Amino acid sequence: MSGQGGKTNPGNFFEDFRAGQVLRHATPRSVSAADQVLYTALTGTRFALNSSDEFARALGLPRAPLDDLLVFHIVFGRTVPDVSLNAVANLGYAGCRFGAPVYPGDTVTAESTVIGLRETSSGTSGVVTVRSLGRNQHGETVLEYIRWVLVNKRDESAPAPAPVQPDLPESVSPAQFALPAGMDFSGYDPVLGGAPHLWDDYAVGERIDHVDAMTLEEAEHQMATRLYQNTAKVHFNQHQAAAGRFGRRIVYGGHVISLARALSFNGLGAAIRVAAINGGRHVNPCFAGDTIYAWSEVLDKMPLPGRADVGALRLRSVAVKDRACSDFPLTGTDGKPDPAVLLDLDYSVLLPRRGTAA
Amino acid sequence: MSGQGGKTNPGNFFEDFRAGQVLRHATPRSVSAADQVLYTALTGTRFALNSSDEFARALGLPRAPLDDLLVFHIVFGRTVPDVSLNAVANLGYAGCRFGAPVYPGDTVTAESTVIGLRETSSGTSGVVTVRSLGRNQHGETVLEYIRWVLVNKRDESAPAPAPVQPDLPESVSPAQFALPAGMDFSGYDPVLGGAPHLWDDYAVGERIDHVDAMTLEEAEHQMATRLYQNTAKVHFNQHQAAAGRFGRRIVYGGHVISLARALSFNGLGAAIRVAAINGGRHVNPCFAGDTIYAWSEVLDKMPLPGRADVGALRLRSVAVKDRACSDFPLTGTDGKPDPAVLLDLDYSVLLPRRGTAA
Amino acid sequence: MSGQGGKTNPGNFFEDFRAGQVLRHATPRSVSAADQVLYTALTGTRFALNSSDEFARALGLPRAPLDDLLVFHIVFGRTVPDVSLNAVANLGYAGCRFGAPVYPGDTVTAESTVIGLRETSSGTSGVVTVRSLGRNQHGETVLEYIRWVLVNKRDESAPAPAPVQPDLPESVSPAQFALPAGMDFSGYDPVLGGAPHLWDDYAVGERIDHVDAMTLEEAEHQMATRLYQNTAKVHFNQHQAAAGRFGRRIVYGGHVISLARALSFNGLGAAIRVAAINGGRHVNPCFAGDTIYAWSEVLDKMPLPGRADVGALRLRSVAVKDRACSDFPLTGTDGKPDPAVLLDLDYSVLLPRRGTAA
Repeated sequence: MSGQGGKTNPGNFFEDFRAGQVLRHATPRSVSAADQVLYTALTGTRFALNSSDEFARALGLPRAPLDDLLVFHIVFGRTVPDVSLNAVANLGYAGCRFGAPVYPGDTVTAESTVIGLRETSSGTSGVVTVRSLGRNQHGETVLEYIRWVLVNKRDESAPAPAPVQPDLPESVSPAQFALPAGMDFSGYDPVLGGAPHLWDDYAVGERIDHVDAMTLEEAEHQMATRLYQNTAKVHFNQHQAAAGRFGRRIVYGGHVISLARALSFNGLGAAIRVAAINGGRHVNPCFAGDTIYAWSEVLDKMPLPGRADVGALRLRSVAVKDRACSDFPLTGTDGKPDPAVLLDLDYSVLLPRRGTAA
Repeated sequence: MSGQGGKTNPGNFFEDFRAGQVLRHATPRSVSAADQVLYTALTGTRFALNSSDEFARALGLPRAPLDDLLVFHIVFGRTVPDVSLNAVANLGYAGCRFGAPVYPGDTVTAESTVIGLRETSSGTSGVVTVRSLGRNQHGETVLEYIRWVLVNKRDESAPAPAPVQPDLPESVSPAQFALPAGMDFSGYDPVLGGAPHLWDDYAVGERIDHVDAMTLEEAEHQMATRLYQNTAKVHFNQHQAAAGRFGRRIVYGGHVISLARALSFNGLGAAIRVAAINGGRHVNPCFAGDTIYAWSEVLDKMPLPGRADVGALRLRSVAVKDRACSDFPLTGTDGKPDPAVLLDLDYSVLLPRRGTAA
Repeated sequence: MSGQGGKTNPGNFFEDFRAGQVLRHATPRSVSAADQVLYTALTGTRFALNSSDEFARALGLPRAPLDDLLVFHIVFGRTVPDVSLNAVANLGYAGCRFGAPVYPGDTVTAESTVIGLRETSSGTSGVVTVRSLGRNQHGETVLEYIRWVLVNKRDESAPAPAPVQPDLPESVSPAQFALPAGMDFSGYDPVLGGAPHLWDDYAVGERIDHVDAMTLEEAEHQMATRLYQNTAKVHFNQHQAAAGRFGRRIVYGGHVISLARALSFNGLGAAIRVAAINGGRHVNPCFAGDTIYAWSEVLDKMPLPGRADVGALRLRSVAVKDRACSDFPLTGTDGKPDPAVLLDLDYSVLLPRRGTAA
């Protein structure tokens, strides 16, 4: 086969997807300490587990693993060219579980399986649901999540694939959490960890204003998004964006998640491991120049079966722009989302328990 | 020797150069995975060979080498203080060959030999041609290229050095390509590589619109240029630039080359190794805020002697600002370069051949 | 203990400090080559010792150590949440000594001891002086310095701690310099080092215009400051800063020190090791958009006891904004600091001596 044209990747359109289809994603990614360093410089994260090899060893790990969300973004980035290049919108996430920690030197590959398909009533697009999987070079799962996106059709008259209804978990249960092998939270040092408040100290319904804030620059979100090799055009092309709905580049929603998580260190510093993301919504787009604040609420407090050293919190973390969070903004008096809210994230974290630490 | 003054490097002026002179450049550079990670964050490159150790091993290399152009910029950066600190203009490149791959842990040194000298008719400057060489710590050549620059004289009345006419190759022939020892392209996985189109699939004269685009920020090109320790003042000093011809900092032309190459992944993803740069022209200066698009044309298609696993393409890649490339902009109707064109690069790349891969 | 509120770190207020109190700082930091690479990309530093493993080995070190000021910033960053979160102003530094070099793979921890306390006459704040110490994973001191800050009281009526007068050295004497074990400056290669002028070549009173300049972007200083995990709010929150005195984010003063040091390579390139910081003053705040120039003066020239291979210079380095330094700006005709001056730094550096090196 040879000849003119057709060399660029047009991405998959709605009618290209098939239920059960497995998409092996391109550009496997060897990660290094540099990924963590650059992620730190872009987000300001301060969790000691990802910052210090010595701290990680005291918890039974061989060295500092990469930040959980950095792993999420690297896996997610790989899926974009096959899953969401023609996406109109990211509709949701579910059932996201973090597996084996990712260490410098590991190589991450990703694949996705189509588990849901539904044409929209207009017939011009459809909702595609995939289960994406990140693996390390040993074949261990480092991340698993379900994501559904609204994807355009190439040809409106193309027959729609038969509808398939995906099975979406409401949340990831503690029994499904993957505790890293050998990890013992009783080695947690609250002083070096920077957080005296352990699992025992949180109460369901408690809300925490994370106080700190970060103003975001174009160069920062572009560098972060390229670090993940996420190719979605809306983040990078001002020439095209100028003519679009917002007139501006849109910040990768995952970067807002990372900023919210980094800000949450102040108040949730002992939440050293993200176990799961139960769901999340990008309520409003984020742009360069926005100053990101965040607050969190404890939705649930869960012991872990057979573990006295570690417990889980289910959290709602809300990222807000250009507005301090002492009054925990979420919904306006009209019942609609507060226009300052960017992100409403539901996720679960692991914290050392007081019984054994300190 | 002691005393006041004369401590800063004034750079070489035209009358300081001598034919045959060898300039050993300062600041040897140990490279690491971090260079590749930061380069990825600054350019968005997605070539699997430079991204994944496992992918590189499948092709017979010990691990992922650094991006070829990153190596070019690092060698080039070293030469600036001795060769082009007083340059008025970069006039051209020729005979650029990539040699041994550069791996994390390697230390790169650079030297240049003066191979051409010619005073301009005005008597105020002259053209200096150097052959620059980058070597690793084993003494292996990692890069070799010829570059000519227009350099001011310190003293207009200084006698010009005797003119020497350099020998400039029109292009680098396939016989001169340095295929990395042990590299076997038949291990190329087109799915992980992200590019189903191999050497066999391209035709001479074929043109490819790379579709994607990148808007460039001041922080990004400054960080890239400092990463290479390139000290050319025009890239960094807005205070001085404000009074200059453009009123702005000029983006290092090499960064435009890197962006064009990164964008070319979409359409030329299997071109995993740059073998040579035959020539190139920075048609217009690039500034922060520009959105870079790119397109390529296949100038030639060359088998490699004794190799069934790999072939070469000679490409023209054109970088364009603030304008999509579906109509392959290059020359206006008046025969002059389209003012949107930034770069017109002539280079050769290696791709796996279909016969043996997949 | 459980329940609502109080989870965020309010920082220490003046009345929280006690003389002799030891503060162990959070978030130990494993460093890697990536820290040096990113620091290079952010500052443009070109000192060969920190750039090349081979160059470092020729000087008797196992590999390239991290830039001294990078180590300073990493230690300093750790102290912020405990020492200066409620600081009104950084008043000064003294007695800063660099100890064991920090290598990729090392883990740096920090602690501070309160050595001075004095309530201000207004009764609303007080001066806290701490001695901060950075250590590697072997317990070796990598950095030691004294810093005093003006800290607010939480409660103006709170009784002030008993005043304690700290002992502040005027400077660090050569006898106190920590020469890295095994380091022999006679292996210095002036060509690769990029600096023909060695210790012998400098004279007391000599002034050097470093010529080059760097325009600073918001993304750059934010990334640098987050790289150090320095959480001081004034550097990151434009939403809050807009309502403040300057209307803008203030650049971390340490970044200005780093830029001055990087610029000083041109004229002081053989000053490959910072031995001490004797004192320093941030004369004016620095903002994004400023173009930083620098000049230096040799304050003193000191042989080192028992060493023929290396000598020390005590330097004043002055960073200036938006103004070339050929006339060495410092004090206006009115005797007040020139408003363009940002930084007036007094520090000591080590240079190879001519006797033994080439």
